[in-house]
Amino acid sequence: MPVNPNAAIEITAFKWVPGFAQGVVRDLRARWALEEAGLDYRVRLLDQQRPPEYLREQPFDQVPVLSDGDVHIFESGAIAQYVGEKSEVLLPRDTQGRFRAIQWTYAALNSVEPAILNLLLIDLFFTGEEWAKLRRPGAEDFVKLKLKRVSDWLGDKPWLEGDRFTIGDLVMVTVFRFLRHTELVAGFPNLAAYLRRGEARPAFQRALADQVAVYKQFQPEGVTA
Amino acid sequence: MPVNPNAAIEITAFKWVPGFAQGVVRDLRARWALEEAGLDYRVRLLDQQRPPEYLREQPFDQVPVLSDGDVHIFESGAIAQYVGEKSEVLLPRDTQGRFRAIQWTYAALNSVEPAILNLLLIDLFFTGEEWAKLRRPGAEDFVKLKLKRVSDWLGDKPWLEGDRFTIGDLVMVTVFRFLRHTELVAGFPNLAAYLRRGEARPAFQRALADQVAVYKQFQPEGVTA
Repeated sequence: MPVNPNAAIEITAFKWVPGFAQGVVRDLRARWALEEAGLDYRVRLLDQQRPPEYLREQPFDQVPVLSDGDVHIFESGAIAQYVGEKSEVLLPRDTQGRFRAIQWTYAALNSVEPAILNLLLIDLFFTGEEWAKLRRPGAEDFVKLKLKRVSDWLGDKPWLEGDRFTIGDLVMVTVFRFLRHTELVAGFPNLAAYLRRGEARPAFQRALADQVAVYKQFQPEGVTA
Repeated sequence: MPVNPNAAIEITAFKWVPGFAQGVVRDLRARWALEEAGLDYRVRLLDQQRPPEYLREQPFDQVPVLSDGDVHIFESGAIAQYVGEKSEVLLPRDTQGRFRAIQWTYAALNSVEPAILNLLLIDLFFTGEEWAKLRRPGAEDFVKLKLKRVSDWLGDKPWLEGDRFTIGDLVMVTVFRFLRHTELVAGFPNLAAYLRRGEARPAFQRALADQVAVYKQFQPEGVTA
């Protein structure tokens, strides 16, 4: 198992998050990429209340940060790419193949995720608010449009660029997981199968188990999930 | 001037967009990067109503797509990286410097832009709607928080990673431009100066002029701006 306290590569993660966030916090992307690449890593755990100096490592006060010797980077998309460069498993070496994979990380994070997080925020944080009730149908339609675009592109291919899983798929699958409280992905059978295919990968399963194991360990007393 | 009908590199752009979008459509990022790198490019112009087969080049029906020989990629962040790899002006060659620049393109597009576009949509497309009126203060506060994070990070540095302009700054500056209908950036003097510094670069000025020149050429009759 790549989690190894003596590993050269370190990532940051949270000790605990509420149930709705367990299994989707973005250190999952780093863990998954490192598992696919077979690279050992250690985890630096942070309280929900981070020390102010963490902003000098991660200006948006989020996780993960990856450190590897002299390299210190944040943003899960950049981290996926960094790990991808260390392992051909995740990132083809030819220019076209490499940039097709890279472009899909941007597409997942900029052309798809914002619509999905918008709906997630409405459903999880703003449920009771009047604007959220009024806006929800439009926000859901916008998610469906984005899913349709990806579904039409994917067709019957196993992965976004064909037969080969890349960092683009890794990020896209984790983006779709933000919809797990809805049936929206199920509305597109090829996307539902794509999501299952991603989540069935042994590297994903190990990454997810390791993320959730930490939350179990630091579960606050008297809090369920 | 890099715009050259015989250039090897091609990007897609729109013939015309309404005034609110002129100067912020994302082919600007590709044009600006190519200008900084001193690489000639030609422009394939598209009508607002794209042919259905364009989705096979750009699954989200957006611009730009960049083609360069066998390389065909979309997503302006990926295109900025691709151009950056061709020119050290935009992307340092050492691993840490390179990934610090790359991470800022992801930060701009995933940690900052979604909040800003959310506000832009409220102000431009949903102005009359009840939910938009109710949501606007919260959406604006969220933009301010994101701007504060970048402002705190930037401090008195000229660019996000110090003395050197990179693709990270190129993307961040274009993200801030989506707020030009507000005074929000002006509320952070170091960000306002950063934005002016970016926009003052000759390569930016040429890119902007070339984008807008096309809209003037294809201005529909009877439409102002």
